[in-house]
Amino acid sequence: VSETAARPLLRHLNSINDLSNDEIESVFRLADRYLAELGDPRIPHRIARAGSAASGSILATLFFEPSTRTRLSFETAMLRLGGTTITSADPATSSAAKGESLADTIRVVSNYADIIALRHPRDGAARLAAEYASIPVINGGDGSHEHPTQTLCDLFTLRRENKQLRGLNVAISGDLKGSRTIHSFVYALARFGANIMLMPAKGMGLPEHVDWRLRQEYGCTPLPRAAYERKHGSIDALYVTPQKPHQLSFIPNTDIDLSVEAKIRRQIDAVYVTRFQKERWTEKAADYPRVDLKFLKDERYADTSVLHPLPRVGELDISIDADPRAVYFKQAAYGVPVRMALAALLLGRDGALARHPGGFAPAGGPPPYDQPTDVGIRCANSNCIVHDPMERPYTRNRFAIIRQPSLRLRCFYCDNDIAGFVAASRRTRRLTPTITTADRLEDLDPSDLVLFASDAEAEAAGYAPRHPRRSRPGA
Amino acid sequence: VSETAARPLLRHLNSINDLSNDEIESVFRLADRYLAELGDPRIPHRIARAGSAASGSILATLFFEPSTRTRLSFETAMLRLGGTTITSADPATSSAAKGESLADTIRVVSNYADIIALRHPRDGAARLAAEYASIPVINGGDGSHEHPTQTLCDLFTLRRENKQLRGLNVAISGDLKGSRTIHSFVYALARFGANIMLMPAKGMGLPEHVDWRLRQEYGCTPLPRAAYERKHGSIDALYVTPQKPHQLSFIPNTDIDLSVEAKIRRQIDAVYVTRFQKERWTEKAADYPRVDLKFLKDERYADTSVLHPLPRVGELDISIDADPRAVYFKQAAYGVPVRMALAALLLGRDGALARHPGGFAPAGGPPPYDQPTDVGIRCANSNCIVHDPMERPYTRNRFAIIRQPSLRLRCFYCDNDIAGFVAASRRTRRLTPTITTADRLEDLDPSDLVLFASDAEAEAAGYAPRHPRRSRPGA
Amino acid sequence: VSETAARPLLRHLNSINDLSNDEIESVFRLADRYLAELGDPRIPHRIARAGSAASGSILATLFFEPSTRTRLSFETAMLRLGGTTITSADPATSSAAKGESLADTIRVVSNYADIIALRHPRDGAARLAAEYASIPVINGGDGSHEHPTQTLCDLFTLRRENKQLRGLNVAISGDLKGSRTIHSFVYALARFGANIMLMPAKGMGLPEHVDWRLRQEYGCTPLPRAAYERKHGSIDALYVTPQKPHQLSFIPNTDIDLSVEAKIRRQIDAVYVTRFQKERWTEKAADYPRVDLKFLKDERYADTSVLHPLPRVGELDISIDADPRAVYFKQAAYGVPVRMALAALLLGRDGALARHPGGFAPAGGPPPYDQPTDVGIRCANSNCIVHDPMERPYTRNRFAIIRQPSLRLRCFYCDNDIAGFVAASRRTRRLTPTITTADRLEDLDPSDLVLFASDAEAEAAGYAPRHPRRSRPGA
Repeated sequence: VSETAARPLLRHLNSINDLSNDEIESVFRLADRYLAELGDPRIPHRIARAGSAASGSILATLFFEPSTRTRLSFETAMLRLGGTTITSADPATSSAAKGESLADTIRVVSNYADIIALRHPRDGAARLAAEYASIPVINGGDGSHEHPTQTLCDLFTLRRENKQLRGLNVAISGDLKGSRTIHSFVYALARFGANIMLMPAKGMGLPEHVDWRLRQEYGCTPLPRAAYERKHGSIDALYVTPQKPHQLSFIPNTDIDLSVEAKIRRQIDAVYVTRFQKERWTEKAADYPRVDLKFLKDERYADTSVLHPLPRVGELDISIDADPRAVYFKQAAYGVPVRMALAALLLGRDGALARHPGGFAPAGGPPPYDQPTDVGIRCANSNCIVHDPMERPYTRNRFAIIRQPSLRLRCFYCDNDIAGFVAASRRTRRLTPTITTADRLEDLDPSDLVLFASDAEAEAAGYAPRHPRRSRPGA
Repeated sequence: VSETAARPLLRHLNSINDLSNDEIESVFRLADRYLAELGDPRIPHRIARAGSAASGSILATLFFEPSTRTRLSFETAMLRLGGTTITSADPATSSAAKGESLADTIRVVSNYADIIALRHPRDGAARLAAEYASIPVINGGDGSHEHPTQTLCDLFTLRRENKQLRGLNVAISGDLKGSRTIHSFVYALARFGANIMLMPAKGMGLPEHVDWRLRQEYGCTPLPRAAYERKHGSIDALYVTPQKPHQLSFIPNTDIDLSVEAKIRRQIDAVYVTRFQKERWTEKAADYPRVDLKFLKDERYADTSVLHPLPRVGELDISIDADPRAVYFKQAAYGVPVRMALAALLLGRDGALARHPGGFAPAGGPPPYDQPTDVGIRCANSNCIVHDPMERPYTRNRFAIIRQPSLRLRCFYCDNDIAGFVAASRRTRRLTPTITTADRLEDLDPSDLVLFASDAEAEAAGYAPRHPRRSRPGA
Repeated sequence: VSETAARPLLRHLNSINDLSNDEIESVFRLADRYLAELGDPRIPHRIARAGSAASGSILATLFFEPSTRTRLSFETAMLRLGGTTITSADPATSSAAKGESLADTIRVVSNYADIIALRHPRDGAARLAAEYASIPVINGGDGSHEHPTQTLCDLFTLRRENKQLRGLNVAISGDLKGSRTIHSFVYALARFGANIMLMPAKGMGLPEHVDWRLRQEYGCTPLPRAAYERKHGSIDALYVTPQKPHQLSFIPNTDIDLSVEAKIRRQIDAVYVTRFQKERWTEKAADYPRVDLKFLKDERYADTSVLHPLPRVGELDISIDADPRAVYFKQAAYGVPVRMALAALLLGRDGALARHPGGFAPAGGPPPYDQPTDVGIRCANSNCIVHDPMERPYTRNRFAIIRQPSLRLRCFYCDNDIAGFVAASRRTRRLTPTITTADRLEDLDPSDLVLFASDAEAEAAGYAPRHPRRSRPGA
């Protein structure tokens, strides 16, 4: 094909941050159009095909975890666009049961389908898949990492409910640690300038690296619990998001601007409820927060919208279903036009995403640290795809280097951070002086550099301690 | 949409009795047309799409119990109509594995698809689903309640075999208790005026409430076994159906017109064989009746048609396959045009069902008794959907009140009857005098009425005994 | 239909030998055309439907064993042809879970779909299915018997890599016993005149009956290991295939023409690697051969093509993936156009296969021996479909009689051979004199003939020993 220049770029959706705010708006505009064409789902006997953007195209849904809703939503979207689907929905009857790696499966299915929607129990699986795919891969949920298409539905719902994201107060209740949905969602809220109010179940707060990222990279200011509570009542944590999201400033953790408290409205505009992610925990949940009509009686919730990604398993009382504040079934319905729009754009039909993707990633950072899996420091998240024995040959110890405000490694696959590590020289087989700033790290020759989690790990790998002559002065 | 007036009514198929006899005939006429268009399935290389009645429409098959035949039959029907399908066929990989209720699943899938075919292990699941659906729900088998589309195929087969239903002698062999197929079938036979000859496996006769309904509501006269046997040989039970089904008379159980015996032809026109429903029983079947060529040698079966809903597991010998009386593979094949016709009509394409459904339900009865699940009498069928812990918040203690010939409660979901119960007043927290007729029940204020299974149950719920002062005269 | 004469013949694909060499070439020519129409799968956003050969047609994929690749490949092929699919991919949720036989399932699905792709754990399942189907059945892998569509992809890949099959040296590594893929492949290699070099894992050589057939029916000359090794290095076994496959001569096992050694080139043109078929073995594999870049360093492999049917589980190192000799992902991709071509031809669209199938079977042999399953000798392969209790009523003790060079019975279903057996007369209930040639067998009246595995088996069935009077001379 000679038209290489005109060919749209191959794009994936692994994290909500793979899309810029403008691109998210493009998805929503197209979803609006499809929604109008589909007609009201409550009207029986409509013929609900919206155009033929996916005519002749095949969606492969590869679901390595239980799902009905998300998989059927993707498949419906493809069918409503005039496309078709192939499905592997049961890990026990798939090639994985024969011991096949995800990487190989993806390479093969890339030759069958035109687009893939993937769900997988391991964090970072969608990123690995995208690396090996020659067609677009959409993350339909990977471990407790992210679930970006759910977040697109969530934002679209708030937008259809006439909730302007900038300055919106959004309370989030439940398992904030295990819920991948929440992780994608809080990044998006921060980026669009909403304030995030956390109401976690006991011991189920945001993972440290998500909290760090909100504060350090998305400019969120955590407001002390006491400050808001003195005025308005109980909220576990509140992140005040800068109202101009494109002008992110990295506010150090200790430098909390207490004056922002005054600007926070009392009203809670949306409550986002999530279930206990029992498949991500070994223990049971105790005192899991439950949202019911009594909870919503507080006048702060008078005009709130109640969202839930569903399925619910008791944490959201069905007495709310008939309440006009309940929008969770609409939210589920919007999954179809939103996924239609996303698929159409990724397929390059009815428009396309940018030829040069940037998403929300900070551009121009240092090159990633990249070593084979048998060399040096490994991702600290035991559920990361790099720790799946079947995938190990297909992955690398690969980390983005985060320099500001303090040095961190971020796993290429699962986005978990490592804050402390040590460096060594492959040539001298010796640990280097302690690294505390990015500049020091960049002084080192990348081809010679190897990182370890600790001195002990380096020494176990046969590296000599730092300044060994000094360490034995009496010798 | 302003054309509300012209919009077809949302219709479901939960029970065969949801369709009037005329509507069943409409389904068959359309099925005849589709069958002609599909051509002979034994001719290779035909192109078998019949029109485009479902073009742009999606069928969701939600199967919570094992199935190949029924699910594939529904899907084939949709594809042959030019439609498409989405499928959730494995409970273990569905949202149910995460603990989602059927009611929620149905509400979500209503936003994806245009029509749903449901199979579920619980009696009454299809009725619950229909309550929460905004698109037509077809019962593809619910517990041991009903399987109406199988019955449509059965009747269509008899009709194609030129068997006039009125006055037809139909013998039914096997597990009449656990087989939902049989329950739908006997109602239909009674409604169309066929005589029903029962040959149950030991201990597997018709459920009491089905028997009661045949006798009391469909005008069937059970003929004593001895009477027919003296003349013709062994049959366990025989129901003589009134030949004018629309003029049902409620013949009391004791008032058997023995003179009808003379009118019963000796010839058995159809034998319907069913497998042991091992998934509905905890014990194994002993001496399960087996139909083979030897069985069919009796000259009463000389011109019989042998039907079986399939799968068979030994009760129908394969030696019959080549016999011209065997019609069970045709019966299976007819599943496609019959389900095509049903889907097209429910979708409002190629015609529609009545705007004002009546089905075969007696019109104008008393309003149903309706209470929350935590109040008073519950359905006595332990496999009813109301007893599924996941569905409990979505169901109610809801019963039709059957007045004639004796007072009964019929569960709204699973159609099981309760013959004995007691009434109490919510206001006085006291049991009322014993109720024996419907008139007494209707004397009571519905908003004050609460029913219990027994005095003991009422007292356990804190209600005072009837006339307690009289009960302790010596005090 | 009056056009019977013009109607294409119903054809199945059970074994690679069901297709003649010319027919295989027809499949490849059509696959070439579809491949060109599909366009390069590495180009994003192509619209990849090739014509509408299957428009209005339904493929049923019935997979009774785990699979992703093969099933999705079949389904993709059907969709790319404009057709649709119905799927039963999980044995646990199918009618088989209710105890339904494959034979009945196939008969029913024949009334739904237009073509079936079947995978089953039992050898011979596809042949049984074809017997009961009224639509084409494609074997997608049956036990350790055959996997003919994989072989079509393999041959097509070699052909696209410009490897002329005649005189090609093909090395095959791994589990040659359990891999059905290999069995279909070696027959095809022999038929197209390639030399077969075996490198089995320990104890996993070709099954005896496959080896016998290569030598006795396909004219392959096994070259003593020593002869090739002296010149070129280690190969476990090498079959020299006659370069004119259509002029097969049955070279007796002992008559090895050592002079052919001189004609064997040193170069190995293709290496075919297979995984350990753990599902076909009870023990684990030890010292399973592993192909990596080091293995390929031998200059005999300088221009080799590395093939693998995938999935791989360690026996093929991923370091080879980037090597230009690796063609296994192309091989997987070719699965789509090859299966498209096969489906189109079997459906009688875009051409058709021959009206009078011969395949590669020797024509004009003696009629098969055929008895009910309760009479006489049974297939010796314990995994044959005839030994599945559920299928037993649907099968027969049916064997092709192989006369040259020595008498054998070949199971109609699984193609396993029985070399030794005894004959008896049903009339006299007596064993006949020992049979050693086909002529003797044909002297016997087929309607009177019954075979047993041994004298003991015959006697256990109540047959009298041979010449009993002579056996007791002293009496």
